[in-house]
Amino acid sequence: LSSLSSLLHYLTEIKGIHEHKNLIHSFKVGLALVLVSLLYLLDPLFKQVGDNAMWAIMSVVVVFEFYAGATLGKGLNRGIGTILGGGLGCGAAILAQNLGKVGQTSAIGTFVFIFGAAATYTRSVPSIKKKYDYGVLIFILTFNLVIVSGVHTEKVIKLTCDRLSAIGMGFALCVSTNLLIFPVWASDELHYSTASKFNKLACSIEGCLEEFLERIEEKKDNQSETSFNTCISLLHSKSKDESLVNIASWEPWHGKFGFSYPWHKYLQIGDSLGELATSILSLKGCLRSHPQPSSVPMKQSIKKSCEVVASLLACTLREHGDSIINMKRCRPAVLVVAKLQLSRLELSDAVLPCMLRMLPDDDGFAMA
Amino acid sequence: LSSLSSLLHYLTEIKGIHEHKNLIHSFKVGLALVLVSLLYLLDPLFKQVGDNAMWAIMSVVVVFEFYAGATLGKGLNRGIGTILGGGLGCGAAILAQNLGKVGQTSAIGTFVFIFGAAATYTRSVPSIKKKYDYGVLIFILTFNLVIVSGVHTEKVIKLTCDRLSAIGMGFALCVSTNLLIFPVWASDELHYSTASKFNKLACSIEGCLEEFLERIEEKKDNQSETSFNTCISLLHSKSKDESLVNIASWEPWHGKFGFSYPWHKYLQIGDSLGELATSILSLKGCLRSHPQPSSVPMKQSIKKSCEVVASLLACTLREHGDSIINMKRCRPAVLVVAKLQLSRLELSDAVLPCMLRMLPDDDGFAMA
Repeated sequence: LSSLSSLLHYLTEIKGIHEHKNLIHSFKVGLALVLVSLLYLLDPLFKQVGDNAMWAIMSVVVVFEFYAGATLGKGLNRGIGTILGGGLGCGAAILAQNLGKVGQTSAIGTFVFIFGAAATYTRSVPSIKKKYDYGVLIFILTFNLVIVSGVHTEKVIKLTCDRLSAIGMGFALCVSTNLLIFPVWASDELHYSTASKFNKLACSIEGCLEEFLERIEEKKDNQSETSFNTCISLLHSKSKDESLVNIASWEPWHGKFGFSYPWHKYLQIGDSLGELATSILSLKGCLRSHPQPSSVPMKQSIKKSCEVVASLLACTLREHGDSIINMKRCRPAVLVVAKLQLSRLELSDAVLPCMLRMLPDDDGFAMA
Repeated sequence: LSSLSSLLHYLTEIKGIHEHKNLIHSFKVGLALVLVSLLYLLDPLFKQVGDNAMWAIMSVVVVFEFYAGATLGKGLNRGIGTILGGGLGCGAAILAQNLGKVGQTSAIGTFVFIFGAAATYTRSVPSIKKKYDYGVLIFILTFNLVIVSGVHTEKVIKLTCDRLSAIGMGFALCVSTNLLIFPVWASDELHYSTASKFNKLACSIEGCLEEFLERIEEKKDNQSETSFNTCISLLHSKSKDESLVNIASWEPWHGKFGFSYPWHKYLQIGDSLGELATSILSLKGCLRSHPQPSSVPMKQSIKKSCEVVASLLACTLREHGDSIINMKRCRPAVLVVAKLQLSRLELSDAVLPCMLRMLPDDDGFAMA
């Protein structure tokens, strides 16, 4: 085990922290697979479980996901889908057994069609698709397998229970391996990526200021696209955040996140930051298109006020980001807002009406 | 069947066209499930296939997707994953059979760990994750099932071939039901949604013009957010487009799309339209923050030029959208660009330097 951990250490030195997580995940999957294979490999276990051990292996392979929450969510979906599908399938199979041979076949065909089509239709309902899509899929699968097995096996109920217990074993093994050995929490990733967005936007604002100063000093050649791309990528991150929120909502109490933690608020913060990113993009558009004032004293007075406003905004954003990471309230909004309003007045005095009227959008946000 | 189609007609009258597609999809899934269940239900077929029919049912449930391309992609992934996993699993099982009891168990455990971990690691490589994630998953599953079955069955190869043929049957049934009965092509959806983006942006530009005119006439109360939201949603559509492109690339020649159709160009168009959306957002920001010129003759002269530019841009965008839908070249860029440059000159003459310098970004795009 020590040689394995040194190999791991060696491999992660070459690649980054994300590679590290991927490697650990791979080892965890390998371990879980070996453990579940023991159901086949050790004779005493195989005598107990028999060929149903196949279902345990299948569960481990399919349910084991990168994030702890995704594993739990998929596992619970699989469990509920199997129980419901198995129960209904048993009922329908027993119902059909009492009919004649032709009656049974046509009844089973009808059941399969109706339940299959209806369950597939519910998969297109957005709220079900979002959280229970996999569960409905497993429902369809189990219902179908159980009801058609009823034709050739008398002991439908025993068959279903055996499979269910095998799936349960697979799930238990999956969850324990995934959650006990270096778990990767989607909630952590969401938390830190949201906090880092504040920092990125602060850098973008500073980038704007830099470009403004360069334009004043008439060095027009190097337009950096970094802050522009940051804002665009922030606008594109919505779907990733949504899936992380979805996974995080499956994760149990851990670390600093309690039960019923308000994960959807991260989406709201993301939307607000998206609006701020749009404002920064607008500001950038204005910067690149407006004629700059040319008299030297005016330049100097604007320069100072702009520097003050930009650094104040960047500093406030960073403070918000840090307060999210540390989960502490930041200093009262009033203090920051008063300073911002003061700087805005100074800017008003120093002409540049365009730049001036642009700002309320941003500090309006920073207040929020 | 006619009563079924009238029921379908009745249901779709209540809901929209998308509901229509969902309903058809549900019926198709139901039909495919009934057909695959016949492997169990009809005795002559069951005698041929036996309990391996389970694998055919599983394949249908798991592989049948909404889009034709997704079904094909998943099916091919499943096929290739099964063949590779089955082949390697057979080889490893036969290799292990020659060792003693303890040797066999430990050899199988080692194989399971190494192949499981290595395959899981490849799932984190972006290019494999994008197109072959499901294939690798199935590889792990099949490899594992085949190698552990080798402990208790001598005829590993026969077992694997039987399962493979059952999966093949399921896949064939799936693909034929999905592609022959009202197929839903991701390529069509991508094509039309890209074309409609042009129209949406044209509407946004007209919305900007409207707001500008209202501001001139000093009706400042109704700020419509529609065009704003259109631009934002366009910026958020990137991940959906990416998945559609991925699915579309699995779809075979059909309708107007030939082999090796350049699907990635839709992403490039989407990016360019995203840039235009950002420009429109900037324009909107400027509109809402700048003091408007107050002298009446100036207003009138600006109004006319702005109307000309906006309608020219909107018209050009719509033309591009139509040309994508009809797959025809639109009229040469030179004509439009000349007109736009003329209007720009007129605008230059009519003051409003801010508005004027904003425009080159937009018509620069319309040229492209």
